[in-house]
Amino acid sequence: MPRAWSLKSRPHGMPRGSDFALVEIDSAPLGEGEVRIANRWLSVDPYMRGRMNDVKSYVPPFALGEPMQGGAIGEVVESRAASVPVGTKVQHMLGWRDEAVVPGDQVQKLPDLGVPDEAFLGQFGMPGMTAYFGLLEVADAKAEDIVFVSAAAGAVGSTVVQIAKAKGMTVIGSAGGADKCAWVKSLGADAVVDYKAGDVVRALAEAAPKGIDVYFDNVGGDHLDAALLAARMDARFAICGMIDIYNDGKPQSLKYLAKVIGARIAIKGFIVSDYMARAAEFYRDMGGWLAEGKLQREETVHDGLDAMPDAFLGLFTGGNTGKMLVRV
Amino acid sequence: MPRAWSLKSRPHGMPRGSDFALVEIDSAPLGEGEVRIANRWLSVDPYMRGRMNDVKSYVPPFALGEPMQGGAIGEVVESRAASVPVGTKVQHMLGWRDEAVVPGDQVQKLPDLGVPDEAFLGQFGMPGMTAYFGLLEVADAKAEDIVFVSAAAGAVGSTVVQIAKAKGMTVIGSAGGADKCAWVKSLGADAVVDYKAGDVVRALAEAAPKGIDVYFDNVGGDHLDAALLAARMDARFAICGMIDIYNDGKPQSLKYLAKVIGARIAIKGFIVSDYMARAAEFYRDMGGWLAEGKLQREETVHDGLDAMPDAFLGLFTGGNTGKMLVRV
Repeated sequence: MPRAWSLKSRPHGMPRGSDFALVEIDSAPLGEGEVRIANRWLSVDPYMRGRMNDVKSYVPPFALGEPMQGGAIGEVVESRAASVPVGTKVQHMLGWRDEAVVPGDQVQKLPDLGVPDEAFLGQFGMPGMTAYFGLLEVADAKAEDIVFVSAAAGAVGSTVVQIAKAKGMTVIGSAGGADKCAWVKSLGADAVVDYKAGDVVRALAEAAPKGIDVYFDNVGGDHLDAALLAARMDARFAICGMIDIYNDGKPQSLKYLAKVIGARIAIKGFIVSDYMARAAEFYRDMGGWLAEGKLQREETVHDGLDAMPDAFLGLFTGGNTGKMLVRV
Repeated sequence: MPRAWSLKSRPHGMPRGSDFALVEIDSAPLGEGEVRIANRWLSVDPYMRGRMNDVKSYVPPFALGEPMQGGAIGEVVESRAASVPVGTKVQHMLGWRDEAVVPGDQVQKLPDLGVPDEAFLGQFGMPGMTAYFGLLEVADAKAEDIVFVSAAAGAVGSTVVQIAKAKGMTVIGSAGGADKCAWVKSLGADAVVDYKAGDVVRALAEAAPKGIDVYFDNVGGDHLDAALLAARMDARFAICGMIDIYNDGKPQSLKYLAKVIGARIAIKGFIVSDYMARAAEFYRDMGGWLAEGKLQREETVHDGLDAMPDAFLGLFTGGNTGKMLVRV
């Protein structure tokens, strides 16, 4: 019997293992147009924490007792959809399980870019697109800009660093701990801030003595405050995530918010799905940079469906360098 | 001897009377091209608090012991500038004093709009332009939008309410106390929030059950948080001022900031001087609305140069309805 993780109880604060239950799911015969997929790679992403709350947001909350959803990559093992024959490698949104039945028109065949399948859950998938459109469209970053990106060792942040460098920008990344900072530096970052080593406001002021023009926010909190203080005239902030508060939900305390007035800062929130129709631009540019050897990737892999809650929780404790994945 | 207010000591927190000193200033002979102006009306504005700190900002700090500056309206009483003869009514930036010597090319003749002179320090001056460009350009507000404006009984806010109504928008204004709220309602506001009567977050949620598309911020703090919670998809926030923190400088605590992501909120700070080159648009539209009887005005007037610090401090304790002025 296929198995899936369901949400047993809505977490308050940091989720615990007991909030999740591994349940058996039906292996029903396929309907016309459907395919059965053996999942090989499952994605865990910070945004999923929001779906565990019973709050209307840009994606509906997970239903209690039902299999959760998320990005997944697998292989078609049975097909009643002519366009997606057995053996096709596909990406779809019925993750958190080892087997999925999906309408053939709701899966995406993996583009042929010469990267391993699992890269389409990271740098060549949703996190990569988030980095690409957030930096280049939402923040409108240009070659002469000084860019600060938080969580720069994460799936999104590490791609922001590399796209920024490929475009000729100056980049400062923040990460937690010497190992991650060293990796971010190896990706081309001009300077790195270790937020675990001390006050991030002071550290950014030192790392960016000329200030910053763009802030790509994955974190919120002190990182956002540091960016406000460092912001130059007409700075643009793309707000992608605020992982600092996904669990505790506490108010964010900002000492330098009034700087938006004098420095005419523009702060803009965004969701990558708004840019899905422009995926071709992303694949074209990323394919080019990949061919030029300008893109590196790291994955932190947990093995087995059983490990999925641990992988998810690791996102909030800095457990990953690059994309966090589960290999089924 | 002419007299001027100078800054004796830099205030910490709310300024005290002892931070200001009324000093005699030179009444030197005019140089070529200069005019001597007998000031009739002096402006006090919240932004002046920022100039009292020794901090680089979009305007330089006031120098200790020197006459302070600010908007003023007066009459030319002596002239060595052919284009500005004796008797001309002018606006200029050497306020906080009863007499000023200014190069003739740095004064503006009052436009002929049929309003009293002092209106050019308020609704037809810098505060009015702030309202006009902040609402229509920075926030890009349109007829179908629901607009929330804080400090709606102030010089800027009361003009935002009236421009928004003239343009067919739905408007909710906040003000402190029943009298001010009644005045804001009389200006055409569809709903009013009395921030002194209770929690502004809850009050806005009740006053705007459908949410808001635009927030014009004069206050920051709880008002900003209320606007974040109420914001609909693609809401735009024009950040004009944050009077809540001009004195105490304490961090702003925002519970709903993460909403910028899901609702794709755009927050933009601005300074009215960026729009000075477009003053003609402002005078054209305001003149039209004035002729149509769509603009009302209120002024809170203190009499005599001696009263100037009291007038200024009153800005921070809700002492004004409409524009706060000093009549010399």
